[in-house]
Amino acid sequence: MNKIVECVPNYSISNEPEKMARILAPFQNNELVRLVNVEEDPSYNRSVVTVIGEPDEVKKAMVLSCQEALQVIDMNHHHGEHKRMGAIDVIPFIPIKNMTLEETIALSEECAKEINEATDIPVFLYNLSAKREQCRNLPDIRKGEFEGMKEKLKDPFWKPDFGSEVHPTAGVSAVGCRPLLVAFNIDLNTNDRKIASAIAKYIRFSSGGYRYIQAGPASLEDKGIVQVTMNVTDYQKTAVYRVFETVKMEAKRFDVEVIGSEFVGLVNLDCLKDIAAYYLKKPHAQDVDLSLEEVVDVVSEKLMLHGFSEEKVIEYYVR
Amino acid sequence: MNKIVECVPNYSISNEPEKMARILAPFQNNELVRLVNVEEDPSYNRSVVTVIGEPDEVKKAMVLSCQEALQVIDMNHHHGEHKRMGAIDVIPFIPIKNMTLEETIALSEECAKEINEATDIPVFLYNLSAKREQCRNLPDIRKGEFEGMKEKLKDPFWKPDFGSEVHPTAGVSAVGCRPLLVAFNIDLNTNDRKIASAIAKYIRFSSGGYRYIQAGPASLEDKGIVQVTMNVTDYQKTAVYRVFETVKMEAKRFDVEVIGSEFVGLVNLDCLKDIAAYYLKKPHAQDVDLSLEEVVDVVSEKLMLHGFSEEKVIEYYVR
Repeated sequence: MNKIVECVPNYSISNEPEKMARILAPFQNNELVRLVNVEEDPSYNRSVVTVIGEPDEVKKAMVLSCQEALQVIDMNHHHGEHKRMGAIDVIPFIPIKNMTLEETIALSEECAKEINEATDIPVFLYNLSAKREQCRNLPDIRKGEFEGMKEKLKDPFWKPDFGSEVHPTAGVSAVGCRPLLVAFNIDLNTNDRKIASAIAKYIRFSSGGYRYIQAGPASLEDKGIVQVTMNVTDYQKTAVYRVFETVKMEAKRFDVEVIGSEFVGLVNLDCLKDIAAYYLKKPHAQDVDLSLEEVVDVVSEKLMLHGFSEEKVIEYYVR
Repeated sequence: MNKIVECVPNYSISNEPEKMARILAPFQNNELVRLVNVEEDPSYNRSVVTVIGEPDEVKKAMVLSCQEALQVIDMNHHHGEHKRMGAIDVIPFIPIKNMTLEETIALSEECAKEINEATDIPVFLYNLSAKREQCRNLPDIRKGEFEGMKEKLKDPFWKPDFGSEVHPTAGVSAVGCRPLLVAFNIDLNTNDRKIASAIAKYIRFSSGGYRYIQAGPASLEDKGIVQVTMNVTDYQKTAVYRVFETVKMEAKRFDVEVIGSEFVGLVNLDCLKDIAAYYLKKPHAQDVDLSLEEVVDVVSEKLMLHGFSEEKVIEYYVR
């Protein structure tokens, strides 16, 4: 595959294997689309699906999946802890390989239009695809949730980008492009949350740290340790190894050590090669001439990763 | 002294000891004002003077110094490599101790007004004191230089904040508040400028590095080495030790070592204490209970500073 896009639709359903099978069917039995992961959260009553593949094929499958979801989900009977405004609550598209943000935005717009035409569900373009400032942040669009959408959409300020009337059973959807982000946590051998807090402050953009880092503290009660938990919103500019080494350096001030780290969700091979390049003393990610397995080995050792394997690398599914 | 401000007027003159003595006299023989440094650059034909002291006294002395400069400098006969628009080209005020940016902005406004009243030189408020977007950056105001100012000021867009007509011999001045910045260079044991360039890119804000770092490469031909040269525009948020340690870490990738560093110009004690705090494993700068000399020793050793001593610390002059 030359171009690869990732799509992570969130469906308002869980614990319904037969209905879920219908929703997932369009992503299966297609050489150019890979269903990578399904995470159901019963308390959220929500399923997060990860699909990657050839952009146009992923888009077509996505539209078909919405048509299926429309048949099996009725929002009038949906309850769950996570805020939601529709049966297919949100559909983010993320550029993975040989795709620009602009191409991904265009793909998300086509997908939004086709979903509306195929299902009559009104669709907002959000995040990088947003046409209006008020549509940039999903929580702003979602405010009021399914139950409040009918009233909310009467205001022309909240006119959807495609369609206008709230769908009686499927509500409203949001479709948009977002940049690839890497969710990364670093373990410290202490249970003192203040230390994780201080280090998070040192490294995050908002308080003077790295430009593309959002970070905070987290306590792992079961392990009795704390983590510096972060999103790397552009790993090509703020490298993961740089942040990892900076956290090791800052930990010294507190006589604390970094004892492990983990990626949350999938990570792409280029990000791993960028990390390996530093430790192998190569100038750039593309100078790392190793197989996917070898890259995983190097990065696992240097970052002291746990719970990591080939299956966490996006490219594992599209070789 | 409770409140301390730094003022760094740039005069369009050099190699004129008697005239310079008149310009500097108002900063001398005043218990509440210290003349800390005079740097004359003959090829620039420009002198940069550093004064610190009690805010109101510094302001009064600054106005008197402008009156003297007006008597001894004629811009119609001034030539030099540095761009300039007036006899007292620019007067930055920097908060040093117990002064907010707001107080420093107010002080710069009073000073600008009083200079105009005392000399008839038109004055622009620039940088943080700017009242209009076009006046924020000094180079934008200075464009056209002394010779082009008469024509430039006919445009109401470029009306000075005080006064209106270009002074026939002294031109135009700019007065404003800027935050304290730390100019810091790190030496690498290589003459490969590409390496300094790559590391500068890793650490600077514009390409994904630390929020308050501007950085680039520099070649020291005489020493046969390169430097990562930087401005730390807010050392309280992007700590100097953090950047220093990050450069050490990045240098490893190139099998290069950090062999020294230097501060350019004066640095304040709080910045040095912030650095010492990290290496002494103290939580904050204020936990460093050392004399000025002891702090200088610790920081000199840890940062491998050269050309550093008590005389480079602002507080040395106002104890």
